[in-house]
Amino acid sequence: MKTWITIPNESDFTIYNIPFGIFSTSSIKPRVCIAIGNQILDLVELYELGVFKDIDFDIAVLKSKFLNDFISLGKLKTVEIRKVIQLELTDENSILRQHKKAFKMQSDVNMHMPISIGDYTDFYSSIEHATNVGKMFRDPENALLPNWKHIPVGYHGRSSSIILSGQNIHRPKGQVLLPDLETPVFKPSSKVDFELEMGFVIGKETQLGESVKIADAENYIFGKVLFNDWSARDVQKWEYVPLGPFLAKNFASTISPWIVTMEALEPFKVKGPKQSPKVLPYLDYDGLKNYDINLEVSIQPKGSKESIVSKTNFKYMYWNMVQQVAHHTSNGCNIKVGDLMASGTISGKGKKSYGSMLELSRGGKEPLKLFNNDERNFIEDFDTVIMRGYCEKDEIKVGFGELRTQLLPSI
Amino acid sequence: MKTWITIPNESDFTIYNIPFGIFSTSSIKPRVCIAIGNQILDLVELYELGVFKDIDFDIAVLKSKFLNDFISLGKLKTVEIRKVIQLELTDENSILRQHKKAFKMQSDVNMHMPISIGDYTDFYSSIEHATNVGKMFRDPENALLPNWKHIPVGYHGRSSSIILSGQNIHRPKGQVLLPDLETPVFKPSSKVDFELEMGFVIGKETQLGESVKIADAENYIFGKVLFNDWSARDVQKWEYVPLGPFLAKNFASTISPWIVTMEALEPFKVKGPKQSPKVLPYLDYDGLKNYDINLEVSIQPKGSKESIVSKTNFKYMYWNMVQQVAHHTSNGCNIKVGDLMASGTISGKGKKSYGSMLELSRGGKEPLKLFNNDERNFIEDFDTVIMRGYCEKDEIKVGFGELRTQLLPSI
Repeated sequence: MKTWITIPNESDFTIYNIPFGIFSTSSIKPRVCIAIGNQILDLVELYELGVFKDIDFDIAVLKSKFLNDFISLGKLKTVEIRKVIQLELTDENSILRQHKKAFKMQSDVNMHMPISIGDYTDFYSSIEHATNVGKMFRDPENALLPNWKHIPVGYHGRSSSIILSGQNIHRPKGQVLLPDLETPVFKPSSKVDFELEMGFVIGKETQLGESVKIADAENYIFGKVLFNDWSARDVQKWEYVPLGPFLAKNFASTISPWIVTMEALEPFKVKGPKQSPKVLPYLDYDGLKNYDINLEVSIQPKGSKESIVSKTNFKYMYWNMVQQVAHHTSNGCNIKVGDLMASGTISGKGKKSYGSMLELSRGGKEPLKLFNNDERNFIEDFDTVIMRGYCEKDEIKVGFGELRTQLLPSI
Repeated sequence: MKTWITIPNESDFTIYNIPFGIFSTSSIKPRVCIAIGNQILDLVELYELGVFKDIDFDIAVLKSKFLNDFISLGKLKTVEIRKVIQLELTDENSILRQHKKAFKMQSDVNMHMPISIGDYTDFYSSIEHATNVGKMFRDPENALLPNWKHIPVGYHGRSSSIILSGQNIHRPKGQVLLPDLETPVFKPSSKVDFELEMGFVIGKETQLGESVKIADAENYIFGKVLFNDWSARDVQKWEYVPLGPFLAKNFASTISPWIVTMEALEPFKVKGPKQSPKVLPYLDYDGLKNYDINLEVSIQPKGSKESIVSKTNFKYMYWNMVQQVAHHTSNGCNIKVGDLMASGTISGKGKKSYGSMLELSRGGKEPLKLFNNDERNFIEDFDTVIMRGYCEKDEIKVGFGELRTQLLPSI
């Protein structure tokens, strides 16, 4: 596909991508757009040009401050809308070409939370991560718990504290059990960590009691985002048994502003790892359900350059998204448009491919060297954590843009 | 206070109560009402009579299908609104007395979910319950984990599957590890259980990074409901380590339709249990923060009378609501109007005061005898579980009405 728009080299937002987001300017209230190159395209303008006239939907879904109503149109329509946009951007004679005010530079607009998130679920689906954490938090000899290879283990997280890339956070306080003490203290966490994850957005609802068959699960997934599941390891260690992580996680999680559709990711499907022992029938899938998505994490101390601390790939995930959806609804739990499900930390096999400082620094025992010879066991005040992700194949590139959050000192 | 309305003896909905809910009829869309005796009072009608003229708020908040906007008015206004309603219902000369159409019999209206729940958090705050469960699921000698007396332990639950009293549910399916097997099977749960809990509704939001001081925490609580946190014990046992309960809980939780305000519960405040060891300063509270609320659970098999299986009291809770709010926000996690926080199972000291079948039947080892000589280890298909709660003191009664759900067979 060839577009008449100038797309900078290395851009994540090629004509093959067309991710959806919510933007505003000083004179335009938050509404729906797509990213193309280093610009955004205002879909309200596009609607008013009449290019969507053969697709039955109301302009109100584009004037909404969240994508939920748009996504609720259903894939039949949203896939068609995306195709029409691609068509206009490749048609040399498109009327859009004369309609400059439909475009704005990304640097000139504000991006907003793309969705109103109802429920947020976090999975734990990287076998490398689960093994690394199991060794450190529990038993090095039996790192994986007996249920891990049977269940795509997940737990409920907090929606209210999911924030957009660019919003800074403060180091959380919490109860911590210091070495050699028997009672906890309440203090700023000294082990603030990132978790490199990807999230997916539910695109179709179910009713209570209904289960999604695994062969049908893809139809329930609208698209994907980068996700940083901020964690306070010292708080987590003291609080998480028996009911799971709570305050160690819910002080903030960050998502990227652009939702990349499953259709854009289709060319990057790959085979997943062999699952042994064989999974139960409701989790047994056919075809390619993993995705080849390059991921990286950088740390940028204040006033310094950024240093890449991890490079990994989403294709390593042991449990895939269709299994997660099938499992989540297997008991009849209902899902809603705009629910967010995250992968859990994405770690690869090598030491430089781990998705958290906990793993990268071996719990603080082997500090990482950064660009400026600074060392890091965990994230320090004023560090910015940056995550990036992209797919590339046969000259087709589809990327997620950046996820960026600075950690400020405790309040 | 003496009202000119006829209130049946034993009614939960006395002039001292005035709980809020959402009703509809065939001709009236869902909107805000209060309960009085066996009637409801339509607050839109009351607004139109002009009785709220000195309180600045828009009628739209009463025409909403959830109470969130009403609650968001803030306590200054909602407390005043409740007082005006009490005044009208006690004033012999109230214009409301001639305005019959503002009232409807509760049996003639449909009740709806009172709030749109953003996030739902479940605590684990009964020391009796935590001890009973710890003995069965873990170690009889060390039933309470080391963190339990320091942290009001809680975890995130699922909002989407919280349903109203009266909506029936289906027995969930899930992964279960049967005795003497090494791999799980997927089957209908054979250990479906209730958990007798109370929920409270957040009435005031905080911003991310903000912590609610314990002395101020009461201002963030609008009111309380009965709550049945349905659980599948066999699924729970296999899935819950290490990240907590997930599918064992999220197939359904039930709330009662009427939100009883904290002002109505004020006369029933009592001292809580002594907390030893002393809690950390951010959890240290003054005054009476427990509530004397009588609670009971009945099981009604199909075609049979109901049998009361548990009688207990909310006053036994080790951790109270202000501690839960202070803890939940201690790391800067933001809370929103309409968030629901539940107590965790409320068990008393005696065998007949346990808040779950898991405890009442000792994990299925000591079946309960019901009215008709049926026995129950857990909940059977077509059983209806009924929960009730009320406070009574000096001839003042304030109750919660009924919470009622029938368990239907697996789909």
